[in-house]
Amino acid sequence: MAGEALTELAVRRGFFFGANGAYGGTAGFYTFGPQGAALKRNLEEAWRDRFTRQEGNREIEAPTVMPEAVFEASGHLDGFDDMLVACPECGASHRADHLVEDATDIEDAEAMGADAVETLIADNDVTCPACGTPLAGEPVEDFNLMFATDIGPGDSQPGYLRPETAQGIFVEFPRLKEYARGTLPFGITQIGPAYRNEISPRGGLLRLREFTQAELEQFIDPETDEPPLDRVEDVAVRLYPADEQAAGDGTYHETTIGEAVADGVIGSPWVGYYLGVAQEWYERVGVDVDRFRFRQHLAGERAHYAADCWDAESEVDGDWVEIAGFAYRGDYDLSKHDAYGDDSFTVFKRYDEPQTVERATVDPDMSVLGPEFGSDAAAVADALESLAGRDPDAFADETVTVEVGEGSDATSHEVDTDVANFSVETVTETGEHLTPHVVEPSFGIGRTVQTLLAHAYETDEVDGETRTYLGLVPEIAPRDVAVFPLVTNDDRLTALATQVADDLRATGLSVAYDESGSIGRRYRRQDEVGTPFCVTVDRDGVEGAGPETVTVRERDSAAQIRVPVDDLVETLRSLHAGEPFEAVASRHESVETDVETT
Amino acid sequence: MAGEALTELAVRRGFFFGANGAYGGTAGFYTFGPQGAALKRNLEEAWRDRFTRQEGNREIEAPTVMPEAVFEASGHLDGFDDMLVACPECGASHRADHLVEDATDIEDAEAMGADAVETLIADNDVTCPACGTPLAGEPVEDFNLMFATDIGPGDSQPGYLRPETAQGIFVEFPRLKEYARGTLPFGITQIGPAYRNEISPRGGLLRLREFTQAELEQFIDPETDEPPLDRVEDVAVRLYPADEQAAGDGTYHETTIGEAVADGVIGSPWVGYYLGVAQEWYERVGVDVDRFRFRQHLAGERAHYAADCWDAESEVDGDWVEIAGFAYRGDYDLSKHDAYGDDSFTVFKRYDEPQTVERATVDPDMSVLGPEFGSDAAAVADALESLAGRDPDAFADETVTVEVGEGSDATSHEVDTDVANFSVETVTETGEHLTPHVVEPSFGIGRTVQTLLAHAYETDEVDGETRTYLGLVPEIAPRDVAVFPLVTNDDRLTALATQVADDLRATGLSVAYDESGSIGRRYRRQDEVGTPFCVTVDRDGVEGAGPETVTVRERDSAAQIRVPVDDLVETLRSLHAGEPFEAVASRHESVETDVETT
Repeated sequence: MAGEALTELAVRRGFFFGANGAYGGTAGFYTFGPQGAALKRNLEEAWRDRFTRQEGNREIEAPTVMPEAVFEASGHLDGFDDMLVACPECGASHRADHLVEDATDIEDAEAMGADAVETLIADNDVTCPACGTPLAGEPVEDFNLMFATDIGPGDSQPGYLRPETAQGIFVEFPRLKEYARGTLPFGITQIGPAYRNEISPRGGLLRLREFTQAELEQFIDPETDEPPLDRVEDVAVRLYPADEQAAGDGTYHETTIGEAVADGVIGSPWVGYYLGVAQEWYERVGVDVDRFRFRQHLAGERAHYAADCWDAESEVDGDWVEIAGFAYRGDYDLSKHDAYGDDSFTVFKRYDEPQTVERATVDPDMSVLGPEFGSDAAAVADALESLAGRDPDAFADETVTVEVGEGSDATSHEVDTDVANFSVETVTETGEHLTPHVVEPSFGIGRTVQTLLAHAYETDEVDGETRTYLGLVPEIAPRDVAVFPLVTNDDRLTALATQVADDLRATGLSVAYDESGSIGRRYRRQDEVGTPFCVTVDRDGVEGAGPETVTVRERDSAAQIRVPVDDLVETLRSLHAGEPFEAVASRHESVETDVETT
Repeated sequence: MAGEALTELAVRRGFFFGANGAYGGTAGFYTFGPQGAALKRNLEEAWRDRFTRQEGNREIEAPTVMPEAVFEASGHLDGFDDMLVACPECGASHRADHLVEDATDIEDAEAMGADAVETLIADNDVTCPACGTPLAGEPVEDFNLMFATDIGPGDSQPGYLRPETAQGIFVEFPRLKEYARGTLPFGITQIGPAYRNEISPRGGLLRLREFTQAELEQFIDPETDEPPLDRVEDVAVRLYPADEQAAGDGTYHETTIGEAVADGVIGSPWVGYYLGVAQEWYERVGVDVDRFRFRQHLAGERAHYAADCWDAESEVDGDWVEIAGFAYRGDYDLSKHDAYGDDSFTVFKRYDEPQTVERATVDPDMSVLGPEFGSDAAAVADALESLAGRDPDAFADETVTVEVGEGSDATSHEVDTDVANFSVETVTETGEHLTPHVVEPSFGIGRTVQTLLAHAYETDEVDGETRTYLGLVPEIAPRDVAVFPLVTNDDRLTALATQVADDLRATGLSVAYDESGSIGRRYRRQDEVGTPFCVTVDRDGVEGAGPETVTVRERDSAAQIRVPVDDLVETLRSLHAGEPFEAVASRHESVETDVETT
């Protein structure tokens, strides 16, 4: 199976591996080796180019540790939980909802609540996957997924590792809006680590406790701001809307962004716009579009404030994996921080022309209210003010009735209208304070890396031998080009090869130089890490009267051409820019060689 | 003072600001705004180019959360402490050694130990800086600076936010050496967050609780590996060696790397090599060499295992700030992990030819040792084996004496040589296991950002008005170029300006587009964020029969030239590659304009 072979390759060739192996490993933490770190950086840079630079957005970098107050406001402190059940025998912790899903036909046990899951564990005789002990009767508890720490010494305050990069953007909105000079729409991006203290991390890069997110928070005026939908209206997408999932026959909508928004299949034009941008971007970085879809969230999956949500999903080893989410979040995030924080999370929206409005106000006579209502007096005054804004007509009679307190403590009070000092003023307003809405495309970088490797993994036969290669696009491949001397016992070849490698490096290319082992083995090594082109210096290239030449080998076809050294930079630049190898080959001598089997 | 003005500019223009301002701020945490994040990325990319790519090193990316076992081995769990004293009245925590240094002439109170510092607090009537309460008699305690957390739920293990990126490299050495095919020397780099839970964070980017490091771990065979010193031997450096600091007259060695290594002023050629590389790199990214020096660690500052240590220091607001450290760490790091971890942190060093050596061994007869020495028998056997390796001649007599136990428990035992079964074997060895030594250049990215801004901050007079600008080098400036239409009420100008901005973006340049406010204000905005060039589309450029032209303005001189639109990309490319503006200007029409005062 490709999955296991790919994992073995990833470790052996330095893409990624479980961290701290010398200390028994730490579940949920991976280290990117030299090849993986380079690929990941290229992917992040491609995201930055598309979602920051080309969109005219701004990127920031906020701390990964944030104080508790932020997560009280965001709701993570209360609600960022998974269901935990611990084994009474061996002490291992498990996702209770996952155990139930494995033991039954239930697909979303989390939505059922802890009590129901406890009952299902008992009813289905669920046992501990680690030691086999029955879990019936064990409590199912909410476990908060944030990593907690203390900021500072003795007089410390609680802090958390951010569960998403987004909060680092939301919390600084009061300043970020100044950089945008108070004008909507504007977008802020961030790429960086995020953390979830998973109960049961999975293998590979798919469910980690520390991972990299690339998030864009697009702040808009929901009444007036429109996305530039025309730029992506013709982009073809495969959609898997909620109603098709409910029908359960796995039918996709093969459509375009323009049609899907026009039909209302995609509810928000802004979400539609970013689905289109994302589709193009995924194709650019090498996702196999036949193993890719946008799946709409089912009603139960969606946060209550999220009007429309889609996931980008890729197929990896037979499973569909969420690799990005696109949500219309309304004003939820900014209004929460506006309520909890000490700063303004609104923008001032200036009217085209000043507007004259009538505003009802009260100025209650407290020397009357005080004696009459005692400890309720201030609440009565507030209630009068609130009522004036809500229903000025209530002050037309001689008395007005307000209610103070809540629930069973609620009391009605009757007040003389005169005492309220009700009046209506005519005021001129130049604009209003508006809480921007948020559209959030949120990408998992590690999961995208895993997708790209899985979709690039190929085996074929070259010169009679089975070969494994990664068909990564040049923009993403860890190295741009590898340079070899054919043999190392000829100074002419090693000198020219070193020179060629240095010259290519000077043009900004990422170059591997290798003189170890047979040329065939060196090609295989580069094939396995996805290097798109190999340059070999051989004797034919340095002997004779003509200009010095080298061979250039294309990874996927293993075809080779002979190119003058003086044309090499231009040839590689043009190949990296996307010119097909066959087109370049047509301008050069092709090399028929059995050198690969040497 | 430039410091305060620069801080104000940094916040107002989006370089950096204290994080979580809406929640009262969190001491020691800063957010990089759009300009600062771009500048920081450019700086990291310049470091990567020089210390990874050009050196042929490999970059990895390891997690920021690591398990406790790693820090038991590294020594951070026991020794990564600062001295804390808490106020009995207000509860504020303070660095005890800093309070003593402020109150006395003592320069390195930390080296004196907690008891001495407690006494000094009492003797000098030190009071709480927050509330004035006397601190005499309050305990001075070691406070560990690592942020602690728990990895996983119920069955969790303690984890820490890494105090340096280096441990993520050391701990994976067993795998990293495989990627280097077991051959020294090789270098591994990492750029990423590190954390220190400082007792008293300072303002700005100088002492943060979360910060970015760029570290290189160069693994070498101390017996045979030499750095390519010839590449940097002529690099001029200003050194401040330990003996000059002791003399206290502030005299620097103005010398070259080659001389300093030859004279022994720099003890390790590897440290010397990287000081030279760093000096060139700092100049490249815009550090003012007149406000820069390499200071050698005093004997008391150095870790016991560090043979030679130098700091790169820059002058910021009158203070010398450590911005990088260069240490020869010997085999300390790898031998600790080799002792604590379950994997091999050595490399196998193959001899040029197999070597035949005589090896003394024992095979003690336990059926004799057991009855004779009881519970000491195993220890006696071990002692015999150890002695055979150390001093084979001891087995020449009829009896041999070994010592077991330590200190007051040590006991001598006499053993018949026959019972030890001593023999000498001749074995052929093909190589030996070697623990590589480590040379570590470690850079603080935030402190370097602060240095670059401080050294770039300039004020002058343009068109009779005082102007502030950041003289950042183009490689580091947040934006490459800004594009403006001179006025916005002429569609020809806005259309061409938009087109020019898009064309420049397509070539990979980072472009600001601005049509807000007078052209003078727009120039000032770009001056304040250090944009090296501004392109303005004016009426002269679009009217008349000739080709369309724009003006190009250079930041530092505020001089302008007129350039055909078709030559713009090439002109900017050549300016960014370092061609002086005067040289470019000589090929174009210069523009005499009072447009800046508009």
